Amino acid sequence: MTLHPLFFLTTLLPFLVVSQPEVNQERLQSTITELSTFGKDASGNPNRVAFSDGDIEARNYVIKLMEEAGLEVGIDFAGNIRGRRAGKSASKKPITFGSHIDMVPQGGNYDGCVGSMGAIEVVMTLQEKKLITEHPLEVLIFSNEEGGLLGSRAVSGVLGKEALQVVNSTGFTMEEGLKRIGGNPDKIGEVALNSGNIAAFLELHIEQGGILEKETVAIGIVEGIVGIKWWDVEITGFANHAGTTPMDARQDALLAAAKFIVAVNEVITGVEGKQVGTVGRINASPGAPNVIPGTVKLSLEIRDLSSEKIEMLYAAIQIAAEKIALTSNTQIHFTPVDANSKPALTDPGIQASIAEAATNLGLSFKKMQSGAGHDAQDMALITPSGMIFVPSKGGISHSPKEYTSPEDMANGANVLLQTILILDKTLK
Amino acid sequence: MTLHPLFFLTTLLPFLVVSQPEVNQERLQSTITELSTFGKDASGNPNRVAFSDGDIEARNYVIKLMEEAGLEVGIDFAGNIRGRRAGKSASKKPITFGSHIDMVPQGGNYDGCVGSMGAIEVVMTLQEKKLITEHPLEVLIFSNEEGGLLGSRAVSGVLGKEALQVVNSTGFTMEEGLKRIGGNPDKIGEVALNSGNIAAFLELHIEQGGILEKETVAIGIVEGIVGIKWWDVEITGFANHAGTTPMDARQDALLAAAKFIVAVNEVITGVEGKQVGTVGRINASPGAPNVIPGTVKLSLEIRDLSSEKIEMLYAAIQIAAEKIALTSNTQIHFTPVDANSKPALTDPGIQASIAEAATNLGLSFKKMQSGAGHDAQDMALITPSGMIFVPSKGGISHSPKEYTSPEDMANGANVLLQTILILDKTLK
Repeated sequence: MTLHPLFFLTTLLPFLVVSQPEVNQERLQSTITELSTFGKDASGNPNRVAFSDGDIEARNYVIKLMEEAGLEVGIDFAGNIRGRRAGKSASKKPITFGSHIDMVPQGGNYDGCVGSMGAIEVVMTLQEKKLITEHPLEVLIFSNEEGGLLGSRAVSGVLGKEALQVVNSTGFTMEEGLKRIGGNPDKIGEVALNSGNIAAFLELHIEQGGILEKETVAIGIVEGIVGIKWWDVEITGFANHAGTTPMDARQDALLAAAKFIVAVNEVITGVEGKQVGTVGRINASPGAPNVIPGTVKLSLEIRDLSSEKIEMLYAAIQIAAEKIALTSNTQIHFTPVDANSKPALTDPGIQASIAEAATNLGLSFKKMQSGAGHDAQDMALITPSGMIFVPSKGGISHSPKEYTSPEDMANGANVLLQTILILDKTLK
Repeated sequence: MTLHPLFFLTTLLPFLVVSQPEVNQERLQSTITELSTFGKDASGNPNRVAFSDGDIEARNYVIKLMEEAGLEVGIDFAGNIRGRRAGKSASKKPITFGSHIDMVPQGGNYDGCVGSMGAIEVVMTLQEKKLITEHPLEVLIFSNEEGGLLGSRAVSGVLGKEALQVVNSTGFTMEEGLKRIGGNPDKIGEVALNSGNIAAFLELHIEQGGILEKETVAIGIVEGIVGIKWWDVEITGFANHAGTTPMDARQDALLAAAKFIVAVNEVITGVEGKQVGTVGRINASPGAPNVIPGTVKLSLEIRDLSSEKIEMLYAAIQIAAEKIALTSNTQIHFTPVDANSKPALTDPGIQASIAEAATNLGLSFKKMQSGAGHDAQDMALITPSGMIFVPSKGGISHSPKEYTSPEDMANGANVLLQTILILDKTLK
């Protein structure tokens, strides 16, 4: 019998593709649901801030799951939960993947959780299929991501001492919180890794934006995590009586602020690209309906993958501000805020592996940037890193309304699994 | 001897003009200074809020001064200090004049005080010169002007019962405060007067704007006190992540608010006239640098002498708001605030008498509107009324920096005196 030349493509290839291990969507959905029961506020909304009782309960649940998946689980000095699975080759560095399970106050059940439960689901799938990779694997559930990337900054060696004195909404300092979750603030410096310790890092995460949903794309391949710069802007005019001061004699700081906010928007949207610029906070003094505001303080934030572009946009905003100050008889002053992060680019080789994995699974994908910060931005400092995004319904995040469908979550976990298997073959 | 035809004009007329009674500038300055010693905050700034201990001390000082001026002094049920001086004709109604001595928290020593001390100085001058007018004269020092025109609203019969339960910054309700200053809240309705009780009302006041100083004009003749309308404006967008939400997918309530504030300014300044429009208060939620504001609440105030013009401007602002809401994907909602006052026009005959008085004194004058509220707006409801403005340095008021020069104060008091003498001849 002679096989038709197309036999391989039409008959065998689909079987080969289908024979790839796939995660269990129902199981993933059920662990996500179970995780969401830990840490709620009085109204029943998700409220699992790091170091809270809910965080501790959820961590215990995660440790149990990781042990069920056959991982050797421990907590490092930075409070990160680490689960290790041996590979065939003892000499290889581990392929590491994970995310976080803490959330902002009144946050959602998907930010961080999808990547954490997805990572564990990947290991459970490998365990079921009795697949052992060449590289050791390590699941990393980072501590206190939302409160300043505590766990991942410690691992990448960029955590400053002063960060340990910061208090979050639980009322605990990072130092006190670390002790609550099994970390050790005195030895936190010892968890720092470098490129010699890890082969690669992968993070699955919800997009937190509305692009994938809007364009009906299954998978986002993150090219980089944007840099963030913040400024405090103070506009000084002259407070005066709103009834007796003619319009042409006013030094109205709020009118100048309004023109400034419009100008920021015009500068940011006036050039090609994905940069974003936001004025999120404003305060006008004295703040009475019958007094012309004399002082306005507002926040300015710019994010982009390129530090140079951020600087260029800021320079254009400063020029616009000078013109506004001149015509409105006010003064506009910028103070940089020390809460910035530099752009972090993901590894092009890993991006290609994620694209290959998505293609193999027949999933649409697009390259995009991450506008939010992630643990992966710290890991990118010490090892080749990649991020996989799945759609967020309505682009909503940091809200109880956060939602990603079970199918989208499973797609993401499958891409994570396939990417790990591809990297296991290609990385040394 | 034959007199040259011009003898009268060149030699006698100046003597006749000079022979008019004039107030004592030094004495006026010293009573203003003495009055300023009552009611200061811990930093030594003026803080004589109605019903405070400082207000009570200042009222006792004023009563003593009025008695020294030969007035028959009493306190009415609304806490107004009234000082009466008999006229030659028992059948005539009194010519009434005065202002207030209470101030806003951290206010100034001239708003109300110049008109009050000026009124007393006028009577002291008449007493010195032994001049008795045909009409009886009455000096009225109104209670709690800054906290809602309490005394003058009671006199004009428009004070609502609910006003008595309002608490001011002293912590006292109007009712409690009235008892502290010798009023009687139970009988306050009995102080209401009507046009049969008063021949005319005059108020000397600082301009509280910068027009007279800028144009180096000595006297402002008030054509009317502007009406005031307030609205609460709520702009609803959608709060979202400032990093992950692309610029073209935002429903930024603060950007819409900024465009609204600019539009208010354009509408108000886009038509001829003295109307003013102000956004003085703004609040953006959630109010974090990294969150796109979902809701903005702000105040809108419009003032003008014409109610129709206020309505026309408001209609134009609403149209602009609709366009902004449409293009920014937000909703803009207006709620009228029940804190409005109707425009109050002064009497044209009294305006002419003030102009005649200023001319006789060789003082420059201009007709203008009052952008601030005054006791005279209530008195205008029940009797022909007029207001005399003197310059405010830098246009500053409701501030410890308020200042009017002794010469300007004396000019105002002299115009008040001359106007009273003219009205005494012309009013029946």
